[in-house]
Amino acid sequence: MSAKFAVLGYGVVGSGVVELFYKNKKSIEKRAGTEMDIKYILDLRDFPDSPYCDKLTKNFDDILNDDEVTSIAECMGGVEPAYTFVKSCLEKGKSVSTSNKELVAAKGDILLRTAKEHNCNFFFEASVGGAIPIIRPLHRCLAANDITRVAGILNGTTNFILTKMYNDNMPFDKALALAQELGYAEKDPTADIEGHDACRKICIISSLVFGKHVYPKDVYTKGISAIELCDVAAADVLGHGVKLVASVTALDDNKILPAVMPMLVSYDDIMAGVNDVFNAVVVYGDGIDKTMFYGRGAGKLPTASAVLGDVIEAVKHKVTVFSQTWDASDDNSFIASVNDFTARWYFRVPASSDAPEGAYEHEDGISYITEEKMNFKQAMDKAAELDALAVMPVLE
Amino acid sequence: MSAKFAVLGYGVVGSGVVELFYKNKKSIEKRAGTEMDIKYILDLRDFPDSPYCDKLTKNFDDILNDDEVTSIAECMGGVEPAYTFVKSCLEKGKSVSTSNKELVAAKGDILLRTAKEHNCNFFFEASVGGAIPIIRPLHRCLAANDITRVAGILNGTTNFILTKMYNDNMPFDKALALAQELGYAEKDPTADIEGHDACRKICIISSLVFGKHVYPKDVYTKGISAIELCDVAAADVLGHGVKLVASVTALDDNKILPAVMPMLVSYDDIMAGVNDVFNAVVVYGDGIDKTMFYGRGAGKLPTASAVLGDVIEAVKHKVTVFSQTWDASDDNSFIASVNDFTARWYFRVPASSDAPEGAYEHEDGISYITEEKMNFKQAMDKAAELDALAVMPVLE
Repeated sequence: MSAKFAVLGYGVVGSGVVELFYKNKKSIEKRAGTEMDIKYILDLRDFPDSPYCDKLTKNFDDILNDDEVTSIAECMGGVEPAYTFVKSCLEKGKSVSTSNKELVAAKGDILLRTAKEHNCNFFFEASVGGAIPIIRPLHRCLAANDITRVAGILNGTTNFILTKMYNDNMPFDKALALAQELGYAEKDPTADIEGHDACRKICIISSLVFGKHVYPKDVYTKGISAIELCDVAAADVLGHGVKLVASVTALDDNKILPAVMPMLVSYDDIMAGVNDVFNAVVVYGDGIDKTMFYGRGAGKLPTASAVLGDVIEAVKHKVTVFSQTWDASDDNSFIASVNDFTARWYFRVPASSDAPEGAYEHEDGISYITEEKMNFKQAMDKAAELDALAVMPVLE
Repeated sequence: MSAKFAVLGYGVVGSGVVELFYKNKKSIEKRAGTEMDIKYILDLRDFPDSPYCDKLTKNFDDILNDDEVTSIAECMGGVEPAYTFVKSCLEKGKSVSTSNKELVAAKGDILLRTAKEHNCNFFFEASVGGAIPIIRPLHRCLAANDITRVAGILNGTTNFILTKMYNDNMPFDKALALAQELGYAEKDPTADIEGHDACRKICIISSLVFGKHVYPKDVYTKGISAIELCDVAAADVLGHGVKLVASVTALDDNKILPAVMPMLVSYDDIMAGVNDVFNAVVVYGDGIDKTMFYGRGAGKLPTASAVLGDVIEAVKHKVTVFSQTWDASDDNSFIASVNDFTARWYFRVPASSDAPEGAYEHEDGISYITEEKMNFKQAMDKAAELDALAVMPVLE
């Protein structure tokens, strides 16, 4: 018997899913343990030249009401109509695998509960870190660990821009324009450069690891648009790279602290070597110490690889995988204030200031990293007191 | 109902499994979806001061014949008696999770078949890369890919020694002595420094990825004992680190080429940043491009984390996971000769030789990297012709 699935959305990711599936159909079927095929591709646009035009439909009900379709690859993006479509599919017992981080960050708890109630699966490996296997390793391979922290470079666009600023001394605006030219950044790049995309991803990771839905609105998020070349250069002299880091830390009082901000990463840390559009996620636990997952965080085939990996898993697992789930959150009292975010800090202060030992004096001011740790509030107070020109935490 | 498992071997890894399990028992049970407990610990030694001495037994039959024990963590090491014990357990339908790379490299195909025949699982995540999730991601998360190559730093001892040679200009012998002092190397360090340990691990990866059992005897293996400080220093000048790389590549003629050798790794490659006792595995596939998994490759709790992850999986999956399996190999005709290993090469030739462009002339000779690729045989012929003092391939 052949397992039939449908692809919702024939854009970049959806067409990648179709392409990769037919390229590797034989080995995929071997790994799935059954024959497989794509029965429908849903899109409102016409693709007269597509070799798969016989599978294209504009009517979602064709898919929903076809009992032969047991699994769905959702690659539309955005919360609606994806949410309505996905929920309907799950209610019919069809497992859904999605690349849609907005959907998971907004409605993950509800969709996971719906899947559970209807004995099917809602998988979302592709929603975080593109090709990088992180969701499944987190809740399965690392299941014996008390996970204390996750920190990652979760947005390829900003990492590309920061790499260009560092390697080629290219100012932010020019690097952004280049990213847009190369198709790494959207025409409206706000979601990437202001950290909203990374925020959604750390929300998904936080929810999975700590078991309660974390909403983007509750996460302190700062992007990279204010980063200046002189700070990237000064960080380098001080032995650090500048990266947009999304992290979540378990605190002592049963609270968690998710945050997105540009941070200094020591060259002794493997994360400092994550460049260009690559992403990486570092997981800290009491058994593993730390482990890192690295790869392409976006793109047609890398994302398709993750979606299809989930579809194969859904075909193999006909019962709900309970470990990949979390609860709804009634309030945000389990989320600590960013004021508790504790680190050593990078400051750039005016050239007229006193320079502490080890400071780097340059034409745009005096840059240094504090020896002592302080929390976010203390750092901001100190920055105001010093008339600081730049302030960023240092990743531990 | 509580799922009972037994731990075979109460050495470093076995005691780590017991420690980590009781430390995180609550969250482990939540992820497993059932209560769990350790019923027996098998060891021939006495541990009168252990808090778990009531679980200790010297008689394997206590475990084998107890139907309440449905899962086994094998942490004894060595082929026998581990093989006999594991096979007997599988024949009784008890799933086995092992950290024993010698066992998997020698008998993996037979044990996987036995598990399949008795509808249980033989898991071995801990046998490669310690804490790093690599076995499960390879055959599950990356299931949609045509995997073309895997390359890794799979031995922590040699990586520690090479890091010391590089960072502290410490000669090989002194770095080895330090590794022994710190407990990173055995009294007889042969298996590590001559590459046999890395070889077993690349055999396991090769078998899993390409579907046929690969034996260590069929894999060209060269260790690091001949690496000189001047080559590590010259590689640095040429923009590369020296790493012991275990790799397997799919060739065009349906053959695969596994090999273990010291290689030069460009500083532009994230693998160059893998230092000290850390391990890393890079997987290349047509969907993912490349993805890297990084973490502690050995040690008590990191290895225990991987074993317990498998035990949890075994408790959850009561049917055989077919994707994690491979066939026996009747002959080695699918393994290509190392002579076909193609790369650019590092040469160090006597100071009296002609220096090609870009060469680094130093007091121990002239070091350079070839512009053109050549295969292993060509490189060895050239080395003989040039009276080369050192020759190593460069990782692509």
